[in-house]
Amino acid sequence: MLISDIRVTPVAFRDPPLLNAAGVHQPWALRTIVEVRTDDGLSGLGETYGDLAHLTKVRAAARRLAGIDVHHHHALYAAVAQTIGGDVVTDRHGLTGVATREKTLDRVFSPFEVACLDIRGKALGRPVCDLLGGPVRDRVPYSAYLFYKWAAHPGEPADEFGAALDADGLIAQARMFVEEYGFRSIKLKGGVFPPDVEVDAVLALREAFPDAALRIDPNGAWSVPTSIDVGRKLAGTIDYLEDPTLGLAAMAEVAARVPMPLATNMCVVTFEHLPAAIRDGAVGVLLSDHHYWGGLVRSTQLARLCATFGLRLSMHSNSHLGISLAAMTHLAAAVPNLAHACDTHTPWQARQDVVKPGALRFADGAVPVPSGPGLGVELDRDALEAMHEQYLACGVTERDDTSYMRTFQPDFSPVRPRW
Amino acid sequence: MLISDIRVTPVAFRDPPLLNAAGVHQPWALRTIVEVRTDDGLSGLGETYGDLAHLTKVRAAARRLAGIDVHHHHALYAAVAQTIGGDVVTDRHGLTGVATREKTLDRVFSPFEVACLDIRGKALGRPVCDLLGGPVRDRVPYSAYLFYKWAAHPGEPADEFGAALDADGLIAQARMFVEEYGFRSIKLKGGVFPPDVEVDAVLALREAFPDAALRIDPNGAWSVPTSIDVGRKLAGTIDYLEDPTLGLAAMAEVAARVPMPLATNMCVVTFEHLPAAIRDGAVGVLLSDHHYWGGLVRSTQLARLCATFGLRLSMHSNSHLGISLAAMTHLAAAVPNLAHACDTHTPWQARQDVVKPGALRFADGAVPVPSGPGLGVELDRDALEAMHEQYLACGVTERDDTSYMRTFQPDFSPVRPRW
Repeated sequence: MLISDIRVTPVAFRDPPLLNAAGVHQPWALRTIVEVRTDDGLSGLGETYGDLAHLTKVRAAARRLAGIDVHHHHALYAAVAQTIGGDVVTDRHGLTGVATREKTLDRVFSPFEVACLDIRGKALGRPVCDLLGGPVRDRVPYSAYLFYKWAAHPGEPADEFGAALDADGLIAQARMFVEEYGFRSIKLKGGVFPPDVEVDAVLALREAFPDAALRIDPNGAWSVPTSIDVGRKLAGTIDYLEDPTLGLAAMAEVAARVPMPLATNMCVVTFEHLPAAIRDGAVGVLLSDHHYWGGLVRSTQLARLCATFGLRLSMHSNSHLGISLAAMTHLAAAVPNLAHACDTHTPWQARQDVVKPGALRFADGAVPVPSGPGLGVELDRDALEAMHEQYLACGVTERDDTSYMRTFQPDFSPVRPRW
Repeated sequence: MLISDIRVTPVAFRDPPLLNAAGVHQPWALRTIVEVRTDDGLSGLGETYGDLAHLTKVRAAARRLAGIDVHHHHALYAAVAQTIGGDVVTDRHGLTGVATREKTLDRVFSPFEVACLDIRGKALGRPVCDLLGGPVRDRVPYSAYLFYKWAAHPGEPADEFGAALDADGLIAQARMFVEEYGFRSIKLKGGVFPPDVEVDAVLALREAFPDAALRIDPNGAWSVPTSIDVGRKLAGTIDYLEDPTLGLAAMAEVAARVPMPLATNMCVVTFEHLPAAIRDGAVGVLLSDHHYWGGLVRSTQLARLCATFGLRLSMHSNSHLGISLAAMTHLAAAVPNLAHACDTHTPWQARQDVVKPGALRFADGAVPVPSGPGLGVELDRDALEAMHEQYLACGVTERDDTSYMRTFQPDFSPVRPRW
């Protein structure tokens, strides 16, 4: 089962104007689809970021992996490492934390690892979760992911989601998602309005959804004192406070003074960050993400490490398509210590996807683990082609929420902490 | 691939009178052989300790695992956990560290996990290391394992290994093993004679084998001051000092004052021990052992954790047979951060085994990874039957080095620290 051929296809899909501390989502979100084929005719899928600098690295790696056995993850990792050298790829948006050489490598490796697991599962006739220790749950709970948003991208007609620029707008958005998907957890992307406005919004969500698990994530937009103030005001209301402020030292200071655990997908983003975070007690909930933690097997190793050190575990999401949703679902199904509903951007995709419909669905706020072999999803070649055409036509080659925001609000500052 | 049937067979094999801080090895060493069969006719092998209290737990677990898929390690673990309840099984000899509920469970789970991996490998036609990330080396280095020993068990004719009761005896023993197996690392089991005698023996080994990697392991027989004294005297001579003293606090005290890292398979024996050991800097080298770290997959997770926290990794051994040697070799082949040659008792077995000859061999101090499917070893049913008969006839049901020593030396005290 040697890799014979890898196809790397960047795609673009429509993304609503979702607001965050860095600016606002551009009209097009980018992803890269990786198809790995073997000499015995099997193929597997992976999905990763679409930013050009990262895509370039993925393409360079893809050219170097032929001849490696799909079971040989260490060899695959070493080959990818060779193509990375000492390079560090940085995201312009900065929403997934610091960039390091290890993170650069782990991000490039991830889609190939997922595709190899997809192939191995298909060869066995077993779902990918069976290659990760087997399922401990047959459905994976996800969270509604609320965003402040404009009614439409400027100059375009209103999108199907409507505006959400205050608590009432957020509650309407939450109702829409809860009704359609059955979510029992609700996350608010904050860092957009002054903290007290966002605190009031969370309290309004609590009133409107008395039984929902709530959380807020301002992507490090707050200072230490502001974070502590917000944490105290939301005591008993939220399960955890996600990345209120930037950097381990500041997070540790906040953690010591708020009643709820802090969660992160920004200050602990590779294994190299864990020793200091654990030593300093900076984080109580680790939001893992197989896209930058080096794939699914490494994520199960991360899960064991979290269990060992008493860190709670859940899962982060960026805008993604169905290959990633399938991978996240298999992983979460096979992780015993998953402690909270996972994040997903799926509802914002508005049914755009590169995988054929049917394998992935939400029921009662959860995604049943796809039962087919491998990831259990099948590439829709027409959709892939169309979304690749969109990529070529849209003119977006990297995610840049700040520059896009500045086309409408030239004085917008993404500097954090802002408050 | 559902488990249909499990056969649990205790076996005994001849063991020379090897001395240690707890006493002396009895004439018979015990192991338990686990054969797992599936509904589609595959079978896999596991090997574990033979002490009766542990054997009883293994048998109880074996009765509860039918119907579980061999891919579903989490389900298997949960089922074993149910049979363990809150019980803690303690070893009489105390040479593998503290007993806890987690360790009891992980030890009982391990042979079933290994057997399931053997089955999965056979079903795939791939070696077990391919289920653990693939090999990063095609041969696994092992260490010569020197023991002070008597010429024979009292009342028996001299065994083939000869006596080793001083430095010259150890050097002769080392030459014998180095010539036959090609070892490049040499470990001395200490804790038998006063520390200065053992220090001198190590220095004599250094002279006799100037290029060998050396180490000594007194199984916690020394006080903190003695450990520090030995550590300083062996500065530049040994790669690490293994379990000089008992308990994390004492180990941390020693670690801070000796020039080499401390290694352990006694004070960190399950995941629950890692946070304090890391916090206190008690250990520099973790000697993992899949027999008590819950099998091979968990051991790869442990390896990642060690890499994350800068702990060096190697492998501990108790008296074992070929199934364990195969499992250790597949695991070590798939662990990138293996830092030292692994321990093995194989040379002391004197070619007694439950697996057919040919699959496992030593060349230049290393075991080439068996290339056949699964573990790559095949049960020798005649040998199994004969060794089971030996088990029934020998009268030994648990390892008890101290009581056996006291039959010859009634005032022998296993109290540690002794010096």
